[in-house]
Amino acid sequence: MKDIKEITEAVRTEAKVIDQYIKRDLAALKPDLDSLLCKVLEYGLLDGGKRIRPLLVVLSARLCGNREEETYKLACAFEYLHAATLFHDDIIDNSAVRRGKPSVHEKFGTVAAILAGDFLHALAMEIVGRYCGSDGLNIFCNATRGMVDGEFMQLRNADKHNLSELDYHDAIMGKTGLLIAAACEVGAIYGGGNEAHVAALRTYGVNLGCAFQIIDDLLDYQGDPKLTGKAVGNDFSEGKMTLPLILTMNNAEEGDKSQLLTLLENRKNIDDSFDQVYTLITHYDGFEKAKSKAVAAIDNAHSALSGFKEKNTLAEKTILEGLARYVLIRKK
Amino acid sequence: MKDIKEITEAVRTEAKVIDQYIKRDLAALKPDLDSLLCKVLEYGLLDGGKRIRPLLVVLSARLCGNREEETYKLACAFEYLHAATLFHDDIIDNSAVRRGKPSVHEKFGTVAAILAGDFLHALAMEIVGRYCGSDGLNIFCNATRGMVDGEFMQLRNADKHNLSELDYHDAIMGKTGLLIAAACEVGAIYGGGNEAHVAALRTYGVNLGCAFQIIDDLLDYQGDPKLTGKAVGNDFSEGKMTLPLILTMNNAEEGDKSQLLTLLENRKNIDDSFDQVYTLITHYDGFEKAKSKAVAAIDNAHSALSGFKEKNTLAEKTILEGLARYVLIRKK
Repeated sequence: MKDIKEITEAVRTEAKVIDQYIKRDLAALKPDLDSLLCKVLEYGLLDGGKRIRPLLVVLSARLCGNREEETYKLACAFEYLHAATLFHDDIIDNSAVRRGKPSVHEKFGTVAAILAGDFLHALAMEIVGRYCGSDGLNIFCNATRGMVDGEFMQLRNADKHNLSELDYHDAIMGKTGLLIAAACEVGAIYGGGNEAHVAALRTYGVNLGCAFQIIDDLLDYQGDPKLTGKAVGNDFSEGKMTLPLILTMNNAEEGDKSQLLTLLENRKNIDDSFDQVYTLITHYDGFEKAKSKAVAAIDNAHSALSGFKEKNTLAEKTILEGLARYVLIRKK
Repeated sequence: MKDIKEITEAVRTEAKVIDQYIKRDLAALKPDLDSLLCKVLEYGLLDGGKRIRPLLVVLSARLCGNREEETYKLACAFEYLHAATLFHDDIIDNSAVRRGKPSVHEKFGTVAAILAGDFLHALAMEIVGRYCGSDGLNIFCNATRGMVDGEFMQLRNADKHNLSELDYHDAIMGKTGLLIAAACEVGAIYGGGNEAHVAALRTYGVNLGCAFQIIDDLLDYQGDPKLTGKAVGNDFSEGKMTLPLILTMNNAEEGDKSQLLTLLENRKNIDDSFDQVYTLITHYDGFEKAKSKAVAAIDNAHSALSGFKEKNTLAEKTILEGLARYVLIRKK
C-alpha cells in the first residue's frame, strides 16, 4: 500500500496530462468559435482543477485492460460536463467565487455562463457518443438528468427541516455520486470490461462520490477555513439539511428536536445559533455517525475493487484505493 | 399542388400525433422525477406549438422510405432541444412572455428554467444517440454548439452597426437554420436515405430555416401586431441589425448612412426614430431586397426536393413544398 503522498503525486501527474488534452481540444475548437466564447471556455476550464472525473475514466479503462492514449479524449468529456454543471450551479447558488477566483457568471455575466455551459454540455455528449456509443451516452445522460432532478429536489425541499437519510442520499447521489459513478462505468465500458467489472467500478464510483459528499458536508461544520477556503457554517446558515444534522434530528429527544427546529427556522443571529446547533450535533454524536457512514461507503468502494487481480493493473488499483482513503482524511 | 389550407390541416394533424408522443414521454418520466421538474416540463412543452422541427424529422424519414411509427420518438428530441433553447433564451433575452403566457423563467424562476433546459438538453441527446447513433448525435450537437456560438456572436456584436450580410447569415444559421437543417438531416439518415438524399434534405432545411428567419425579421418591421402578437420595431429598439437594415446600410449614400447610424446609436425617441428608419429602408428598397433573399432561399429549398420522385412519398413532398411556400406568405 502506497502512502498518500505518492498517490497525490500520481494524481497530479495525470492531471497534467489531462490538462494537455483539454488544451488540445480548445485549440482545435478555436478557429470555428466566437472569440468571447473561447475566452469563457479557457477561463472556466483551465483553472488548476484536480481532474478527478477524467482520471477515474482513465483508471477504470486501464483496470479493464485498455491502456490506449485515446482514453484521455473520452475522459475530457467528464471534465466538460462537470464544468458545464459548475457554470450553471454558480448562477443557481449565486456564488461569486470558484476556486479562489470570480466564478464564470461573475466574470462574464449570466448570459455567457448559461451559453458556455450549454456548449460544453453538447460537446461532452458528442464525445461520449463518439467513443462509447449509445450505452455510454445513456449512462452519461442519466447522470445529467439525475443531477438536475437532485437540484430540483433541493429547490423543493429548501424549507423542509424534516428530511430523511434517504432524501439526503438521493440528494448527494444527484450532486456527486451519479457523475462520479458514470465516469467509472463509462471508463470500464470503453476499456472493454465484462459485466462484473463494469458493475464493480460503478459501485466503487457511487460509494466514492457519496463518501466525498458526506465529508464535504462535515467540513462545512468542522473544516479549517484556512485549508478549505470556505467559512464554516455555510450549510446551516442556508438552512440546508446535511447528514450530521439529519442524524441528530432523527435521534434527538423532543425538547432538543424542537430547539433545533427553532434554530433552523430562525437563523438571524447566525454565529450564536450555529454554536448551539454544533453543540447539539456533538451531543448526539451526529458528526461521528455521519463520518462512520462515509467510512462504510469507502469500505464498499474498496471491496468493489477486490475482483481486480491482474498484476499489470496493480498501479491503477492502488491509485483508486488511495483516492478512496484520501477522501476520508482530506482537510480541504 | 395543394392549397395552403390543406397543408396547414396536414401539419395540424401531425402536430397532434407528436403531442401524443411528447405526453407519453412525460408520463413515462414522471415516476422517477421531482414533481416540480415535472410541472415545469409540462408547462414548457405542452404549449400548443406547431411542432415544425419534429414534423420535419418525420417527413424527411418518410421521404427516404421509412414510414415506421418509431420515427415519432426520435422526432420528439428536436422539440425537446428546441424547448430547452427557448427556456434559456428567454432568460438571456429577459422575455417575460412566450406564446401568450408567462415564459418558464417568469413562471417558475431562473433556477428552474436553467435546470429544466439542461434536463431537456440531456434527454434530447440521449434520444438522438439511441435512434441515430454517433452520426446523428454529431449533427445534433453541432447544431446546439452552432446555436450557442451564434448567441455569443450576437452578444459580441450587440453594439456594432456595421454588420455584413455574411454576419447576418451566420447569425440566422445559428438561431434557426442549423437546428431546422439538423431535423431534416437526422430524419433522412434515420430514414435510410442515401448520401444524395441526406444532402438534399439538409439543403432544404438550411434554406427553409434561413427564409423563415428573414421573414421573421421582416415581420418585426412590417407585421400586423394583431396577427404576430408582437409590437413592431422590437429589433430596431434593441439596436439589432437585421437584413432590411443591413442591406440599406450597404446601399445608402454617405449622408443617409450617417443618419441611420445616428438613429441607431441614439434610440431615445423610439417611435419617431423608427419612422425615420422605416422611411430610409423603404427608400433603398431594403424590405424588397430582404424579401427577395427569402424567395431565393425558398427556391433553393424547392429545388433540393426535386430529386425525390417516388410516387408513394408524394404526400410528404407536397407538405414540405407547402411549408416552404407558407414561410413566404405567413403573417404570424
